[in-house]
Amino acid sequence: MPQQSSYLALAARFKSGETSPSKELEARLARLDALEPTLKAFVHVARDAARKAAAASDQRWKSGQPLSAIDGMAIGIKDIIETIDMPTGQGSPLWEGFETRRDAASVQGLRAAGAVILGKTTTTEFAASYTFAPTTNPHDATRTPGGSSSGSAAAVGAGILPAALGTQVVGSILRPASFCGAVGYKPTFGALNRGGSYDYLSQSSLGVLAATPSDAWIVARTIAARVGGDPGFVGLQGPLTPPAPKAPKKLAVLQTAAWSGITAGAKAAFDGVKTRLAALGVSLTDRSADPEIEALEQSVADSRNLTLAMNAWEGAWPLGTYRARDAAKLSKPVIERIEQGLAMTQDDYRKLLDGRQEARKRHAAVGARYDGIVTLSASGGAPVGLGFTGDTGMIVPGSYLGGPAITLPLLKDGHMPLGLQLLGLPDRDAELFALAEWAWQSIEPA
Amino acid sequence: MPQQSSYLALAARFKSGETSPSKELEARLARLDALEPTLKAFVHVARDAARKAAAASDQRWKSGQPLSAIDGMAIGIKDIIETIDMPTGQGSPLWEGFETRRDAASVQGLRAAGAVILGKTTTTEFAASYTFAPTTNPHDATRTPGGSSSGSAAAVGAGILPAALGTQVVGSILRPASFCGAVGYKPTFGALNRGGSYDYLSQSSLGVLAATPSDAWIVARTIAARVGGDPGFVGLQGPLTPPAPKAPKKLAVLQTAAWSGITAGAKAAFDGVKTRLAALGVSLTDRSADPEIEALEQSVADSRNLTLAMNAWEGAWPLGTYRARDAAKLSKPVIERIEQGLAMTQDDYRKLLDGRQEARKRHAAVGARYDGIVTLSASGGAPVGLGFTGDTGMIVPGSYLGGPAITLPLLKDGHMPLGLQLLGLPDRDAELFALAEWAWQSIEPA
Repeated sequence: MPQQSSYLALAARFKSGETSPSKELEARLARLDALEPTLKAFVHVARDAARKAAAASDQRWKSGQPLSAIDGMAIGIKDIIETIDMPTGQGSPLWEGFETRRDAASVQGLRAAGAVILGKTTTTEFAASYTFAPTTNPHDATRTPGGSSSGSAAAVGAGILPAALGTQVVGSILRPASFCGAVGYKPTFGALNRGGSYDYLSQSSLGVLAATPSDAWIVARTIAARVGGDPGFVGLQGPLTPPAPKAPKKLAVLQTAAWSGITAGAKAAFDGVKTRLAALGVSLTDRSADPEIEALEQSVADSRNLTLAMNAWEGAWPLGTYRARDAAKLSKPVIERIEQGLAMTQDDYRKLLDGRQEARKRHAAVGARYDGIVTLSASGGAPVGLGFTGDTGMIVPGSYLGGPAITLPLLKDGHMPLGLQLLGLPDRDAELFALAEWAWQSIEPA
Repeated sequence: MPQQSSYLALAARFKSGETSPSKELEARLARLDALEPTLKAFVHVARDAARKAAAASDQRWKSGQPLSAIDGMAIGIKDIIETIDMPTGQGSPLWEGFETRRDAASVQGLRAAGAVILGKTTTTEFAASYTFAPTTNPHDATRTPGGSSSGSAAAVGAGILPAALGTQVVGSILRPASFCGAVGYKPTFGALNRGGSYDYLSQSSLGVLAATPSDAWIVARTIAARVGGDPGFVGLQGPLTPPAPKAPKKLAVLQTAAWSGITAGAKAAFDGVKTRLAALGVSLTDRSADPEIEALEQSVADSRNLTLAMNAWEGAWPLGTYRARDAAKLSKPVIERIEQGLAMTQDDYRKLLDGRQEARKRHAAVGARYDGIVTLSASGGAPVGLGFTGDTGMIVPGSYLGGPAITLPLLKDGHMPLGLQLLGLPDRDAELFALAEWAWQSIEPA
């Protein structure tokens, strides 16, 4: 895998005239053509439209008037997010080829900022667990890229794209990013406008997979500046350029209920991080030494099942109407989820919301006393096989808590990438990025 | 206009076998055929599907196993709400005839409850201010039915339908209900699932227009029991049957900034209500006698402009992508709103949200000390002409405050209907209905 440089470094070369968005795009298309037969990360490539957008960007850089920091950046769009010039298939045979006739808010924002929309990337069915797509892991084609933002993670991890949009409710950005060796960023709930993205759930966040933390930040921040957050939310705030690195003094470790199942390689990798952080003068505290961390651990211990139960209630629509349309085109897991949702009541759902709110209070209590929370992004490298997209145990707590989460591809489990996960408090995404930039510069990649 | 009886009374006759949903549907279709040439309330009538649904309901009532209190009820769907068997045109030439291939959450819930979906009702363009539809007022065809839930209000006010779905951000349920002589209910924000309805805004609420308060309640409550509220919200709660009437002791009067513009007829009508309430032993307090009411009045005085500014920011998507698709098919007001939104920043929007939050605190302070808030639903009867859907000044405060609001067609301004508006605190919709039922039974219609 190439170690990709940040887009800001590349943009400096656009500015100097050393290269151009069009030249850069051709190199990326060549890489796509070489890798895609095995990778299968795209459901649609908008080659002509991308070339046209890149040529327009060339002119803006040439005249010294780029529209934004990401003008000319080639970006992939997860196929549950609407695009005016490409169908939105939601990873489902029921929706394959469906023309929604419009751009999602995020895509509208990206285009307004001069980004080059290169194509639609594969997703699992309705961004849930079942996969119809044959996408492979760029580091080992016998392994899953993870899901549901499968194609976005694979394309970024393979060095085809500097960034791509993804979405996460359970573990759908950070898990595939960890498996594919990409940075994955799930913003605070509501921080990026989900309009026109087929993810309605109360833990859904639109986010970014990218080659570097700074790329993830400038993409997300640029979108928010143009189309804001979800209605009623101000949307991601902070500097338009990446937050400056800031060294932490104290970090909390969140083991999660998945800790007992981590691989030997993942355990060794995390031990290495702990040693490195200690050498850098950062204190680490886990559940054994802090009752508030222990209370937080307990409140997220069952967060995967609780999240799936909330998803079942919240997903009764639209899955119910999809079943009414053509049940034969839905996977068995979707049918089961519909049944689970229909068997629930508003009272069941209220209890789930109350439990989540309680966990968020405990998160706030811990977050107030540490400079961040650190853990692994997966219990190991991507598993072999394309049918199962991997365990979400290490990531779902971050989704459940509603704050920002980021995975950095700094670790290895054998020959496979493994992410280091950092979690922040809601609406403090810029602080989390200051920590992530510090970690990116301070922790040697494995 | 016929004084429609409540659906619960009709359902008792289904139970006894005296009549049936199919017979009832035929009577309604006959009325539709007689009135629709002038009324123009529908963009699509699903005659065959409605007959089939009614026949199935006949069987359920016959066997004593109705699916819900609204089994067999004929309901109209505002044309920004998706239906699997009819296009969703959003009142826009750009979207006319567009097949979304699914039911909205509310429609899925209605069908699951045995309701008969009779057709799609006209709306203004994107449920905003500009009207392409030629719908007339059932009480005077030279006058507007109001908007944006124009067809739903006209069809209910004309006695064609016992209930129809509408949506409100500014005044789009209560205003047309007031103009057409219907009950209009805007629930607490988030209380009815908006999935599949093209209203994304942070003040959007899905609601019900109906012949009686009890009809409005059973429709809304039945939807919530099946598909809940927006994701993250428990959704409308309370009894499945209409809340029992409860007499208030103290009501606050909210005049709003529109008070100075009310017609002589509207003023006389409200004076009549005050006299009647006094005779019933209810005390009324307005801004002149209570500093907290005065503070609330001040915080909502500019709520119309503040709401329109929030709408402009929040509406930059999807209106921006609609403009990219075909600007020639958008009205001038929509183009202007896009420009307004694009000129705004996240900081502008944050200030608007902060101001709204402050107003909501003042509402909570007043609401805690009174049994409800009362005012008019419009500054007068529906104006002459079909181009302007009428002033929203009396209603937008209720939308801005986020709690439940209901209008009762108890008053008259000349020969035109005029609504009495009642406002409640967020999530206390059932209490508001107990007050509304009391008013419905205690205040003689004009």
